[in-house]
Amino acid sequence: MDQPTRKPDAPLPAASAPAPNRRKFLTQGLTAAGAAVAGIALPARAAEPVGKEFPAWSTVIGKPLNGYGQPSRFEEPVKRYVASAYGTLAPGTGSARTPLEKLEGVITPNGLHYDRSHNGTPDIDPAQHRLLIHGLVKRPLTFSVAELSRYPMVSRICFLECAGNSSVNAISPEPPQGSAGLVHGLVSCADWTGIPLALLLDEAGVEPAGKWLLAEGADSAAMSRSVPLEKAYDDAMIALYQNGERLRPENGYPVRLLLPGWEGNMNVKWLRRLKVTEGPTHTKDETSKYTDPTADGTARQFTFVQGVKSLITRPSAGLTMNGAGLYEISGLAWSGAGRITRVEVSLDGGATWRDAALQGQALPKSLVRFRLPWDWNGQPAQLQSRAIDEKGNVQPTRKTYKAENAVDGRFHNNSIVTWSVGADGSVKNVYA
Amino acid sequence: MDQPTRKPDAPLPAASAPAPNRRKFLTQGLTAAGAAVAGIALPARAAEPVGKEFPAWSTVIGKPLNGYGQPSRFEEPVKRYVASAYGTLAPGTGSARTPLEKLEGVITPNGLHYDRSHNGTPDIDPAQHRLLIHGLVKRPLTFSVAELSRYPMVSRICFLECAGNSSVNAISPEPPQGSAGLVHGLVSCADWTGIPLALLLDEAGVEPAGKWLLAEGADSAAMSRSVPLEKAYDDAMIALYQNGERLRPENGYPVRLLLPGWEGNMNVKWLRRLKVTEGPTHTKDETSKYTDPTADGTARQFTFVQGVKSLITRPSAGLTMNGAGLYEISGLAWSGAGRITRVEVSLDGGATWRDAALQGQALPKSLVRFRLPWDWNGQPAQLQSRAIDEKGNVQPTRKTYKAENAVDGRFHNNSIVTWSVGADGSVKNVYA
Repeated sequence: MDQPTRKPDAPLPAASAPAPNRRKFLTQGLTAAGAAVAGIALPARAAEPVGKEFPAWSTVIGKPLNGYGQPSRFEEPVKRYVASAYGTLAPGTGSARTPLEKLEGVITPNGLHYDRSHNGTPDIDPAQHRLLIHGLVKRPLTFSVAELSRYPMVSRICFLECAGNSSVNAISPEPPQGSAGLVHGLVSCADWTGIPLALLLDEAGVEPAGKWLLAEGADSAAMSRSVPLEKAYDDAMIALYQNGERLRPENGYPVRLLLPGWEGNMNVKWLRRLKVTEGPTHTKDETSKYTDPTADGTARQFTFVQGVKSLITRPSAGLTMNGAGLYEISGLAWSGAGRITRVEVSLDGGATWRDAALQGQALPKSLVRFRLPWDWNGQPAQLQSRAIDEKGNVQPTRKTYKAENAVDGRFHNNSIVTWSVGADGSVKNVYA
Repeated sequence: MDQPTRKPDAPLPAASAPAPNRRKFLTQGLTAAGAAVAGIALPARAAEPVGKEFPAWSTVIGKPLNGYGQPSRFEEPVKRYVASAYGTLAPGTGSARTPLEKLEGVITPNGLHYDRSHNGTPDIDPAQHRLLIHGLVKRPLTFSVAELSRYPMVSRICFLECAGNSSVNAISPEPPQGSAGLVHGLVSCADWTGIPLALLLDEAGVEPAGKWLLAEGADSAAMSRSVPLEKAYDDAMIALYQNGERLRPENGYPVRLLLPGWEGNMNVKWLRRLKVTEGPTHTKDETSKYTDPTADGTARQFTFVQGVKSLITRPSAGLTMNGAGLYEISGLAWSGAGRITRVEVSLDGGATWRDAALQGQALPKSLVRFRLPWDWNGQPAQLQSRAIDEKGNVQPTRKTYKAENAVDGRFHNNSIVTWSVGADGSVKNVYA
């Protein structure tokens, strides 16, 4: 049988690559890009001729339609970084980190959302799963997923970050040379949809003595955290959907607690019960872990809000600059306290700063993309970013973080990250 | 070897499900949900006791960490609706539609973004792909994907909709009883990142006579459309990323044109060249298709902007209401002309209307989620939604659409959809 073949107008003609039109680029182009930096050289483009033949994929019928798409086979290397803490004994214990340096925008695709699990991902049948609200309530209530699905919902784009994100950059004597995602990729961002927790608590009827919640997961680690009721009544959500579809198994399917801006493991996955209590329960997960030792020998407990933070994702450690000329510095900023109002970038290790452009709406408690065009002169440089939020919080230096935490303190490391660019185009992590 | 097992506090106790606390729900709960409708009955919740035994997944180590996650096996039915136009002859010709009635929020996960292809999805090696800008320009330019990746970028959440979306609802004599996604699912929404097209055009240097572009894909259908330069200089993007990761193959990997708010197939996928021309090229794809016959025998050509539109996704055809009581009416609205400013919902087939709540930021040229709590009294009802945008455009009735289009006119059907709810809880599509 004859198959339809391509009859296009013409093969791609060879094109020259003459000196770029620098003036127009600077006067119009960067305005369109939302930035305003003068003196930028254009990227060097190869003048390679384009062949007269069409590539194979332009001459044959393509792949058929499909029900659930996957990335291109050429994107196979774009994966989460899997760091299992206990190997074969507990293969789900550890983390899978978002490859931040390979991504753009602010939404994390569900397949690459970070995962921190304490005893693996349970394979939950949603028809069997139940959520219980009990403790200091007038009427204990049990909800199936189908019952939850009838309640009024809210949607919100917000980030999640593990309290232990960037910990190796806090405690390693030498700067780790892993990629941005391997070192800092316990942060992701999604469009979450679920039921305002306040609705369900009101239906259960909280007793006057009830001031806290115990939230417990259905995983075999029974991950449990204490949550003040104020947060439950502020913006907490019983989340059912992640970027439009039902939660992914690693992110709590079929039901998770979402506490926008608060440390990741309080957003209890596979949520099976909420118990209203007088005070915090002091579970294993908030005493043996997720409590922060400080420099004076005491410990901070209940450090819920993720600090203001930012990170340049391109360029970053392990990537290579391909010669002098125009680059875009691109990165992410976020704050558990609210909106990011400003991100500054330094090219000289913090001596001088300039404002980066914030992309789009800069939603509160969301990842925010920042950008700054950079005309690299080919000389060594030290790149840093510093975020400021609407409460006036300023991202601290690593030195400040170290001074305020124990020698082995590793939680809530929101300190400034420094990428050192060498004359050879290599990019390394340094402490500055 | 002993494996760690679960030692939780206690099995889930049985919980009663007494009469709900209606007063609190109404005074506090719906405020938190962003709505304000009085007189809502709570969902009936089964009083089933919860067993003393833990479910299996709470007593065994869960699944290990993984590099690229997939939905739960229990979500296997959540798939795109595949409608291949020519079967085995051209298996990629047709569409795969987003299952809107199974999704929430506004972001469409990449695996479920709609796909309309004219000769399948090409399997493009990004290292070999080139984008050419030529025609009425001072210097023709060729870009590799790596070269494009050095340019300043922008990110934007926006919808894409096929001009043929909802066409069966336009031409079928009897209302089709397919699901909301099958009939209206040629619309999706993502966080796109790419290079402002204005940057590249300025570098090529458009000649004064150049007023239009020809955009051509590298698929074997050589899908080609004409685009006015005004749009290219307004908000057009050479997109490389979709919800953070590289474009999916079905959505144009590695490079597509993005024209926010304009009909889907102008957003040429697998983009291989842009030719600057004096006028439109009148390609096969804008003459034999994507031109709209009208009721007076003439045809409208170049109807680029997608009209203001909305759709209730829950409840919708094929879903079943489980008895009287509280439901949430949830749906999507969008306009190619800008921001959605208002969505009204009717419960009586358009006789009376009330305002739905718009979720979050209601970004321009993005899907917007609207919600309205509904206390269903168990009687028949006809649900409609009607969107209005910032330009004052109002979503038309089906009657108006039919009066303005040929009998077999099917493009740009943005007319109001009516779901008829029966006393038995069934939901059907009707023309009203």
